[in-house]
Amino acid sequence: MILAAASELFAVGGFSQTSVRSVAAAAGVDSALVHHYFGTKDELFLAALALPLDLRVAIRPVVEGPLEGAGERMMRVFLGAWEQEPVRLRLLGLLRGSIEPQGARLVQDGFLRIVVRPVIDELGADQPDRRTALVAAQILGLIMIRYVLMVEPLASAPVEEVVALYAPILQRFLADPLPPG
Amino acid sequence: MILAAASELFAVGGFSQTSVRSVAAAAGVDSALVHHYFGTKDELFLAALALPLDLRVAIRPVVEGPLEGAGERMMRVFLGAWEQEPVRLRLLGLLRGSIEPQGARLVQDGFLRIVVRPVIDELGADQPDRRTALVAAQILGLIMIRYVLMVEPLASAPVEEVVALYAPILQRFLADPLPPG
Repeated sequence: MILAAASELFAVGGFSQTSVRSVAAAAGVDSALVHHYFGTKDELFLAALALPLDLRVAIRPVVEGPLEGAGERMMRVFLGAWEQEPVRLRLLGLLRGSIEPQGARLVQDGFLRIVVRPVIDELGADQPDRRTALVAAQILGLIMIRYVLMVEPLASAPVEEVVALYAPILQRFLADPLPPG
Repeated sequence: MILAAASELFAVGGFSQTSVRSVAAAAGVDSALVHHYFGTKDELFLAALALPLDLRVAIRPVVEGPLEGAGERMMRVFLGAWEQEPVRLRLLGLLRGSIEPQGARLVQDGFLRIVVRPVIDELGADQPDRRTALVAAQILGLIMIRYVLMVEPLASAPVEEVVALYAPILQRFLADPLPPG
């Protein structure tokens, strides 16, 4: 199974340490077959995550609009995904593994590299590394409290309320001048 | 061992479901002995967490000052604890367990109830439940990115830089008017 091999190798070695060739070898097939069925290494990685939505499509509305309002659009995309039960259950499974070193790489390689960083880059603000870390921290904290620990009243708060609380902070980290650092 | 019994019972049943009597029974001693050595149930709980600092003492500077600047003082107390290696290692151990349901109770009963909520209550702003959840989310997100996943440049950023980034957000959640919810 190509996907099972990819999933295991990405989890152990991280995205950068894993090659399509090594996945093919582990699955006992030729690299060309992996490329034929799964395309690029990015696409193979996303397929191995087995998410019931395409993250790269889901984040398009964030970058296909003015810089103004990007924080609010990002919150809506993010909550829109997490509020769907099949997506939430799969993401919670991935997150549970993220506390261990292997799973931590999945969050770094998947969430930060495939979701957050491209948004920051396309929006074009300065200090992209710093903004990526800050936006990721903001979203991970909300995930922990709302979906993992389920702390009330944030766990049951309507999506619009969470957007109102978080959009200004995300907007600041995505686009506004940051303090020196 | 009283502490070993307390640690296990608090982890399994949470703070509210665990009595000093049940801890005493599990340790094969009298409740009076537990009270004699460890004091109140709160004190027993803190002792079972085995932290190399007293959280209730550590947070005093946050509440013993004006509402203005409370966010900055809270960031300094929080980072001051996490930047000490023995404290950080112990807190990381507790956090690693927090993704599982039993450990999640430890975060709720320990971090939220003993650290965050008393600060919110003493500062006296409205909507204490909502502010507690928001402050906890803010701090947990930073912990995940800086100390667990170690995402740069936030992982290596000087304390003063993190304070400058986070103090305004914490101040808002601690003291400023919140959007309706």
